[in-house]
Amino acid sequence: MSGVQGERVSLDLLKQKMADFAKERNWDQFHSPRNLLLALVGEVGELSEIFQWKGEVPKGLPDWEDEEKIHLGEELSDVLLYLIRLSDMCGIDLDKAVLRKIELNAIKYPVSSSKKQSNTSTIIANINNDTASG
Amino acid sequence: MSGVQGERVSLDLLKQKMADFAKERNWDQFHSPRNLLLALVGEVGELSEIFQWKGEVPKGLPDWEDEEKIHLGEELSDVLLYLIRLSDMCGIDLDKAVLRKIELNAIKYPVSSSKKQSNTSTIIANINNDTASG
Amino acid sequence: MSGVQGERVSLDLLKQKMADFAKERNWDQFHSPRNLLLALVGEVGELSEIFQWKGEVPKGLPDWEDEEKIHLGEELSDVLLYLIRLSDMCGIDLDKAVLRKIELNAIKYPVSSSKKQSNTSTIIANINNDTASG
Amino acid sequence: MSGVQGERVSLDLLKQKMADFAKERNWDQFHSPRNLLLALVGEVGELSEIFQWKGEVPKGLPDWEDEEKIHLGEELSDVLLYLIRLSDMCGIDLDKAVLRKIELNAIKYPVSSSKKQSNTSTIIANINNDTASG
Repeated sequence: MSGVQGERVSLDLLKQKMADFAKERNWDQFHSPRNLLLALVGEVGELSEIFQWKGEVPKGLPDWEDEEKIHLGEELSDVLLYLIRLSDMCGIDLDKAVLRKIELNAIKYPVSSSKKQSNTSTIIANINNDTASG
Repeated sequence: MSGVQGERVSLDLLKQKMADFAKERNWDQFHSPRNLLLALVGEVGELSEIFQWKGEVPKGLPDWEDEEKIHLGEELSDVLLYLIRLSDMCGIDLDKAVLRKIELNAIKYPVSSSKKQSNTSTIIANINNDTASG
Repeated sequence: MSGVQGERVSLDLLKQKMADFAKERNWDQFHSPRNLLLALVGEVGELSEIFQWKGEVPKGLPDWEDEEKIHLGEELSDVLLYLIRLSDMCGIDLDKAVLRKIELNAIKYPVSSSKKQSNTSTIIANINNDTASG
Repeated sequence: MSGVQGERVSLDLLKQKMADFAKERNWDQFHSPRNLLLALVGEVGELSEIFQWKGEVPKGLPDWEDEEKIHLGEELSDVLLYLIRLSDMCGIDLDKAVLRKIELNAIKYPVSSSKKQSNTSTIIANINNDTASG
């Protein structure tokens, strides 16, 4: 794991690792955009299964056993890895796209108006509308 | 966007940006694990809609218009941001989890055996089984 | 809506309606299995968006406004219609498959053992395991 | 399976079977709307896994083995059963909602205009827009 010690994991590092992984195994042939998209949906399904019979769970998952949290970390990782690989196979610069999206979100939801609304149901309606159209 | 110039975007940077974004808007109250999970599923749905009527599309999306690729970058980013926020709200160290998962994958799919199988349907069956159980 | 008055809506009726709908519009060309699957995922995303910021909601949705329940009925219907169309385009007899699946579930979860466990966390673990493998 | 012989399977029959199944096992306590929604997402994930590494597949799945088609029928059924149970637990009359949705779709996509457009990319754009907003 050289090159990571003491540093944060970047999207680019994961992209490179996924590219190497696929190449070494001759898997590029399987990594078409829609194949990867469906693989991602499959992993989102496995992520959802972890939460499905639990009712609402508090932040930090204080009552979960270690084994369950490790499993959760694996499924979150699977979604992340397929997402990064899908972006790469689509020729999308995810670094650029995600920073741009955060800036767009900041324009869409200015701090002042969001704060004023945050105790009302109006903000929820706005979030729903914006999400649906965004 | 100071602190990013010339560097790669890290998972940790995105986690911090999402945390700041939510705090400034008083949105922490909405960011429970299952709320964020359903928001992620919603964004995966929007990502799928981009690909839904297209049939198979080649890598790099050579025939897509710029506008469509920008839209794709936005939806990929939305999934990424909710995934990172969900991990954070669950208390999962995504840096650690994703590097560990790549190592587990390397053990599960050794290079030599994968390469030998890569022209046969056996590898597909293995991938399917392992994904289902992993 | 002749032929439905006083009767219950069958899977087969919906299959026929979807087939006629597609044929009349010359849409059969778009209804490949994977196109329909991604369309279904898109609708599941829209369904999830309805529930995403709500926290846990009680059965019967007593506090929801009429407009919201109508919207929910539309998204549930969209998922149902694409599911039925997908089954049809895959050549799956959904009538037969679903009755068989209910019988399999009854064997997998016998009444007596399920009842005994129903106040414990064991049953949850079983459900999770079986869902994951089923 | 009395009451089904020679008849088509109705949504209502499946709703009743799911209600009985849950009641007999004391499972009503687990069947909250969001629990069922996440279970549905989990099953959509398993459905997607069946198609994920296959590239485009032709209608009728002519090259699939029997075992694979049986598995597909099971996953389609799991999605259907959770969808029907979710509708029931939300107090949605799915019979009514789905027939209404088909009528709305017929208004949204009139036969004449759809036919005229069906060889052009315009129709695809319309479908995408309408799906996103519908």
